[in-house]
Amino acid sequence: MEIKSGDFVLLLSSDNKTFLIRVKEGKVFGTHFGEVSLQDAIGKRYGEVIHSKLGKPFILLEPTLEDRMMKVRRLTQIVYPKDAALILIKTGIQSGMRVIECGTGSGSLTLALASAVAPTGRIYAYDRREDFLENAKRNILETGLSDLVEFKLREVGEGFDEIEVDAVILDLPSPWEGIPSASRAIRGGGRIASLSPTYNQVERTVECLSEEGFVFLETIEVLVREILVRSGKTRPFERMVSHTGFLTFGRKAIRGDVLDEGSKS
Amino acid sequence: MEIKSGDFVLLLSSDNKTFLIRVKEGKVFGTHFGEVSLQDAIGKRYGEVIHSKLGKPFILLEPTLEDRMMKVRRLTQIVYPKDAALILIKTGIQSGMRVIECGTGSGSLTLALASAVAPTGRIYAYDRREDFLENAKRNILETGLSDLVEFKLREVGEGFDEIEVDAVILDLPSPWEGIPSASRAIRGGGRIASLSPTYNQVERTVECLSEEGFVFLETIEVLVREILVRSGKTRPFERMVSHTGFLTFGRKAIRGDVLDEGSKS
Amino acid sequence: MEIKSGDFVLLLSSDNKTFLIRVKEGKVFGTHFGEVSLQDAIGKRYGEVIHSKLGKPFILLEPTLEDRMMKVRRLTQIVYPKDAALILIKTGIQSGMRVIECGTGSGSLTLALASAVAPTGRIYAYDRREDFLENAKRNILETGLSDLVEFKLREVGEGFDEIEVDAVILDLPSPWEGIPSASRAIRGGGRIASLSPTYNQVERTVECLSEEGFVFLETIEVLVREILVRSGKTRPFERMVSHTGFLTFGRKAIRGDVLDEGSKS
Amino acid sequence: MEIKSGDFVLLLSSDNKTFLIRVKEGKVFGTHFGEVSLQDAIGKRYGEVIHSKLGKPFILLEPTLEDRMMKVRRLTQIVYPKDAALILIKTGIQSGMRVIECGTGSGSLTLALASAVAPTGRIYAYDRREDFLENAKRNILETGLSDLVEFKLREVGEGFDEIEVDAVILDLPSPWEGIPSASRAIRGGGRIASLSPTYNQVERTVECLSEEGFVFLETIEVLVREILVRSGKTRPFERMVSHTGFLTFGRKAIRGDVLDEGSKS
Repeated sequence: MEIKSGDFVLLLSSDNKTFLIRVKEGKVFGTHFGEVSLQDAIGKRYGEVIHSKLGKPFILLEPTLEDRMMKVRRLTQIVYPKDAALILIKTGIQSGMRVIECGTGSGSLTLALASAVAPTGRIYAYDRREDFLENAKRNILETGLSDLVEFKLREVGEGFDEIEVDAVILDLPSPWEGIPSASRAIRGGGRIASLSPTYNQVERTVECLSEEGFVFLETIEVLVREILVRSGKTRPFERMVSHTGFLTFGRKAIRGDVLDEGSKS
Repeated sequence: MEIKSGDFVLLLSSDNKTFLIRVKEGKVFGTHFGEVSLQDAIGKRYGEVIHSKLGKPFILLEPTLEDRMMKVRRLTQIVYPKDAALILIKTGIQSGMRVIECGTGSGSLTLALASAVAPTGRIYAYDRREDFLENAKRNILETGLSDLVEFKLREVGEGFDEIEVDAVILDLPSPWEGIPSASRAIRGGGRIASLSPTYNQVERTVECLSEEGFVFLETIEVLVREILVRSGKTRPFERMVSHTGFLTFGRKAIRGDVLDEGSKS
Repeated sequence: MEIKSGDFVLLLSSDNKTFLIRVKEGKVFGTHFGEVSLQDAIGKRYGEVIHSKLGKPFILLEPTLEDRMMKVRRLTQIVYPKDAALILIKTGIQSGMRVIECGTGSGSLTLALASAVAPTGRIYAYDRREDFLENAKRNILETGLSDLVEFKLREVGEGFDEIEVDAVILDLPSPWEGIPSASRAIRGGGRIASLSPTYNQVERTVECLSEEGFVFLETIEVLVREILVRSGKTRPFERMVSHTGFLTFGRKAIRGDVLDEGSKS
Repeated sequence: MEIKSGDFVLLLSSDNKTFLIRVKEGKVFGTHFGEVSLQDAIGKRYGEVIHSKLGKPFILLEPTLEDRMMKVRRLTQIVYPKDAALILIKTGIQSGMRVIECGTGSGSLTLALASAVAPTGRIYAYDRREDFLENAKRNILETGLSDLVEFKLREVGEGFDEIEVDAVILDLPSPWEGIPSASRAIRGGGRIASLSPTYNQVERTVECLSEEGFVFLETIEVLVREILVRSGKTRPFERMVSHTGFLTFGRKAIRGDVLDEGSKS
């Protein structure tokens, strides 16, 4: 499987810096280790090496989902891969499912959702800002997942067009504004997830989910700690990202009112 | 989409306990809230409620990937959903890929891998213990993902049958024993992941990965902290799982020797 | 320095269990490794060994402040050593200072405070519950620090008797009820600390501190992670205490109104 | 208690920046909010306000132990207050004790130790580097704790002059080089603590402590997470210090060989 014009590569330099870039005849890309001619990548396979004009090696890596998410053009705070990963596994989103995302922003989570439902599912990506949607569309387009995503310009209060979806993901400043609509859109047993940076938002979100008949409510935060592994002197990194947001999950009951909907304990 | 005989349901009681069970005519299941007749679930939809003989309500939820992973029959320590989630996103495993898992154990990670490559990919699940493989097979069978998984009884030193796979996941006491074979099996730019509980294993694993030409090496641990959300008195839970294992990732370079393969920084 | 009747020892068994006990002639203490005669400890030095009637060794250790705190008789949730440690260093409580503690509970923090101001300072320990004060008194008495502590039975709303104290520590369900009194009792530049388990309490506490003219406000939580060190297989413990409480700190400004009192950043 | 020439103050600006500075007649100090005349502080009390030449207010705070530690002149990595706090409480260092510190560095921990043993104890502060000792001396001098500290220029292999000390604190690249000497210097039941950044050092330290007859061994790391408290939008800070070092503790047994010295579990 050879790299051809139009493909994306993740260039890895010898000091572990990466550049996500599209290969094209005649294209030249400037780095701290000199200019790299993308022409050289054509016909190579992933894992092989090309050299800058200064003779510095760059490995041609295949961009992963995480690479794509971290390198989207950002008009907003993005959803980080660690949080997207837990959202996917806890909501059980998988191939073939139909999912609403409300608050698409720069589209990093949209990428993860589209990848998870491929090749036959569908993501309905809502946002109230046209500029955000245009940017997110471009970000998705480059990954080849566009056919799986339908973008919709809409205020959250106006509701969703879909019904019987498998899951709804809310990334909104006021998630409670989207919960009643989400409840109508999700099928019985379907999942909801909401991301919020503050505990105040979480508290009100959980209250609203409970009122709307969602059950098995759970709120978590995900911390990823990096380890600096060197022979004979291995230790955790000295600094870390200690907060991106809280993740709240629930499941749609059709008659949740008959149960006492406490938090999962 | 009605629940029918042979389907699995996750029964949720009013005190947030869950039971993963297969629906069957005439089957009765004992709980702390009295016996539940599974017959009652037939023809209901997910999200609806049935009652035990003591009149206690149980919501019929659809089992998610996480539920399945946590409820596998365990002959070994399992890979937890939080770790599986990060493995999937960091290795970029997705629909249609071919992946080797070495050290299948009870099959919880196998479930996550199979779900990620569905509907057209393939998981090659190796283990040296026949009893583990038999148990893992049963665990996968119940999820309907069996067609995606090929089980292989094999000592790690004997190598893998596949070539040009997209990723290899190692869950071994001595991951370095599997790394040379993994290197031969992975395509250029493909990913490797290894799980280990101790710092010592991680250090030796990273040394071996570096020697075998893997690049962009990274080791992390994933901590999930649960928040107890109650109106007016929200706080983190008082206890948490603080360690399951370290996760190490790398990517296959075809001529990695030309680069200085330090840890990602 | 020989151990004599009336001294306390921390008995350490070979499986790392500890027992805090007072030495006395003729006293016998039952353990999972058989009965230990405390008589045997008299005349020994700390660090030496005595044996149970089953021949099992017990090392005679000197109780530290941490041992004392963890072994107080508990009528309430205690303040943990990790939190007490950060309170001491952040408030700068040291030898000779005068400190008010409001919400003495079982007296574990009182022990730490008294030890820090010894030999010439003074702790004013307030609580509204007579039974708590009696229990705390007994706990302090055994440590020989009683002369440094004055106990006061008092509702928080009734204020404090002292003025110009160096610090006030609040361990109350509604810390804001004690803040105005604390403000009157603390000298200029003196410190305040408050412990609370929930985010909601912290938010209201910080609002109230700011209104009362405290500056340099800071809220933290302290996580202690234990490492299981074994040659060739070292790793973090699998479970940990993930929450005891949030600690909020501030300093008394005499004309704090002239400043914009934001959180420390 | 009025501020006089020669006293130290912590100037707090309205944007929560702090400056630790000595008050002196005629002295002027430059800040981002204009020049501050220290003359103005003389006769004021802590907590009061002075103004820069641009009319900006600065609160005159009393420097705490933590302020002093964070503001020492640094020739080395310093021991952070959070780690010093846990060392003090776990080793039970208190007023009147005699303590050896080996690897004094810039003296931040020395400050904490001296403050803890005041007014009658003694710190024996060893270092092999004369420049470090000179710098540490100056740092201690400014705090008025100099009478409590004796500095000694010495290679770790040459042993300590003191015997029967209450505790030894090691902050060395190779802590095991100091453990045999520490064992000879500590009284029965006395405590040892060691700080190291890597797990490899910790593993060897614990092995050596065990061989030298120390018991009740324990290794921890201390994580302090800051909370950004703002009404209606409270959340953890987005970044944190995730590693400074591991802390290992033990206690001196006189005949520890009769016990199985495992880690505390």
